[in-house]
Amino acid sequence: MRLVHSPAELQRLASEALVSGTIVGVVPTMGALHEGHLSLVRAARDECDLVIVTVFVNPTQFGPSEDLDKYPRSLEQDAILSEAAGADVVFAPSAADMYPAEFQNYVETGPLAERLCGASRPGHFRGVATVVLKLLNVTRAARAYFGEKDYQQLRVIQQMASDFNLPVEVVPVPTVREADGLAMSSRNRYLSADERKAALVLNQSLDLAAESWARGERGPEALGEGVRGVIESEPLARVDYVEVVDPVTLLPAAEGSTRVLIALAVVIGATRLIDNRLLA
Amino acid sequence: MRLVHSPAELQRLASEALVSGTIVGVVPTMGALHEGHLSLVRAARDECDLVIVTVFVNPTQFGPSEDLDKYPRSLEQDAILSEAAGADVVFAPSAADMYPAEFQNYVETGPLAERLCGASRPGHFRGVATVVLKLLNVTRAARAYFGEKDYQQLRVIQQMASDFNLPVEVVPVPTVREADGLAMSSRNRYLSADERKAALVLNQSLDLAAESWARGERGPEALGEGVRGVIESEPLARVDYVEVVDPVTLLPAAEGSTRVLIALAVVIGATRLIDNRLLA
Repeated sequence: MRLVHSPAELQRLASEALVSGTIVGVVPTMGALHEGHLSLVRAARDECDLVIVTVFVNPTQFGPSEDLDKYPRSLEQDAILSEAAGADVVFAPSAADMYPAEFQNYVETGPLAERLCGASRPGHFRGVATVVLKLLNVTRAARAYFGEKDYQQLRVIQQMASDFNLPVEVVPVPTVREADGLAMSSRNRYLSADERKAALVLNQSLDLAAESWARGERGPEALGEGVRGVIESEPLARVDYVEVVDPVTLLPAAEGSTRVLIALAVVIGATRLIDNRLLA
Repeated sequence: MRLVHSPAELQRLASEALVSGTIVGVVPTMGALHEGHLSLVRAARDECDLVIVTVFVNPTQFGPSEDLDKYPRSLEQDAILSEAAGADVVFAPSAADMYPAEFQNYVETGPLAERLCGASRPGHFRGVATVVLKLLNVTRAARAYFGEKDYQQLRVIQQMASDFNLPVEVVPVPTVREADGLAMSSRNRYLSADERKAALVLNQSLDLAAESWARGERGPEALGEGVRGVIESEPLARVDYVEVVDPVTLLPAAEGSTRVLIALAVVIGATRLIDNRLLA
């Protein structure tokens, strides 16, 4: 496995591969890799000739009061895990190489990026879309793998790919959970033992909504209230948002929809976690 | 020569060419082709294996009070001229195919796009950058040709290519002029006979500045005042802007700079024309 830091070097390598017919797959990450990321790498390995894992804690997607500085960084370990999962290349650029002094163009995202996490984290998806666009161009990827845990991110990237005619297939990969149901996230390591237990309310509340749905409940308001009730019963948890939305537009689901996404963000202690469930 | 309307069809065709080692060159145009455009096509022909001329009057780069509806359209003639200059493909998509209903992502341009024409035409370069990004992705071009007449556009595209790590070389091509010095432009056909004569002040004023420069004048203010004086002596001409700027940043040139760009926009009757001169 090769570790590359220079965007220009990686683009050269990827372009040479591309023009000789190689299918490049990319897994964009911020590192601190867990099983969720590794399931993306394995999916890429199954479907592509050259698998590139990018590891870059992207400053433009963090707000001024967010956890950019303390975000976990573990490149050596990430490289070992990536290789074991089938990566051919780990690309770990510097912020200075990705955002040189004269840098000035961004992706201006639209309505998909405005609600849910976009409302809680202004500018977040502008940063995500911009760095993903750059990473797709550097890696020349034909296939790009994104986890469904970050469902809004997935939709934002899918829409950007469509709007900009990007020559890439965006491949969604199901959320990977711990044995007790907590969705894997690099931010789970911020949790104390008590918070770790409290964090189970995210998945539990979604399970409850799935049961209501299975019993025939189709009212977005009732579904949302049920989820909110479970979370509010946990003293260490504070709801950021709970929303029942259309899975394509991410706008509030219409009464009686036959496909909805329940998306939520919950703050446990000082750690903001997200999860979601598609009901159909 | 092939005429293609569908973005998906062209992207398929271009991708097949790319993965077998073909160098694709693109000349993005709004049609109404003149010798300026054709010099771009010939440059692409000299350097590329597959030459694609795009013909698309891009609605997102026109302001609400601008000439989108009356902008000249002449696809049949454009296809004939493109073929004669060496194009392999003319790509002429519909606005509905380029901007479907759910379209929502744009390029957010930076300081390079704010002054000069960006100040007179708010949102213009956001539309230009967005459509060029799309066209580069659809055509998979390794080389993209832009005329120096639209100097700010050239800089905006160069910076976008750099910022987004686009796998393309942006190739500048010198301005082509009529025998009497008027820079070729599709908008020249809006001019009446009297206006056509009056329009010579653009190039004449720049010639005068070049003479001052050759005599040693290095003061941006003096150079700009000279240009402005020539244009204001023409009753049919109204200055939109005359600016003496750094050719890279497009910010006002410092006193004593050894390389400046004089950029100007002048309204002749109801037609807004631009021109520029690099002095070094």
